[in-house]
Amino acid sequence: MTDEEAIRDTIDTWARASMKGDLDTVLTLMTEDVVFLTPGNPPMRGRDAFAASFRGISGQMQFHVSRDVQEVLFEGGLGYAVTHLAVTMTPSGGGQPVRRSGHVLSVLRKQPDGRWAIARDANMLAPERGPNL
Amino acid sequence: MTDEEAIRDTIDTWARASMKGDLDTVLTLMTEDVVFLTPGNPPMRGRDAFAASFRGISGQMQFHVSRDVQEVLFEGGLGYAVTHLAVTMTPSGGGQPVRRSGHVLSVLRKQPDGRWAIARDANMLAPERGPNL
Repeated sequence: MTDEEAIRDTIDTWARASMKGDLDTVLTLMTEDVVFLTPGNPPMRGRDAFAASFRGISGQMQFHVSRDVQEVLFEGGLGYAVTHLAVTMTPSGGGQPVRRSGHVLSVLRKQPDGRWAIARDANMLAPERGPNL
Repeated sequence: MTDEEAIRDTIDTWARASMKGDLDTVLTLMTEDVVFLTPGNPPMRGRDAFAASFRGISGQMQFHVSRDVQEVLFEGGLGYAVTHLAVTMTPSGGGQPVRRSGHVLSVLRKQPDGRWAIARDANMLAPERGPNL
């Protein structure tokens, strides 16, 4: 796998593992000191904080994630990816699905074993605007 | 100037030039193919699109920008910065100021002349929540 393929694989594996609720796999795809940035919230720092958040949500929601990795660039062991995501969250107990979409800018670091892990993640997903809005 | 200082200087100069409405200076601080990502909007691509947007806003609003560059990291000619911004926009014709704050994740590229220019920018500023909300 080239580095570009490895970066794309990280994002792809993340999406597939998220849909399966496979937290253990998702945790291997981020650095220990990962920071997740979202609008209107304080930064979520570290793998443990992510795990707690994931556990809280994954019992309540089924996820479907469509992703389109639009750009990958790296130099040495530092890279970034721009991905367009569309996420549909369906409450496990029934109820209206919620759909959010938008771009994610991810910074990745190459790990000693050659894998690329997400280190900083800027998530700009917003509720989708319907055709009538 | 070290590369880290140069990256911080780019962000600082951007903020100061924006407050002065100095578009010419701001344009020197981004790559030709810059992409600005924000929640709920399509990406804004390229220096020309930025210039048009800046011209549209700068006559109508006075900006005050407080910034705190919280992290800088680079390898070779690729780097990123995490900045916390607080922006107060005051309508030039009078009216209530609007305050937005949040994080920006910026990817920068080192230019042939040694300067660092913003290439990708994920802006997660959101309306500030007051203490009573």
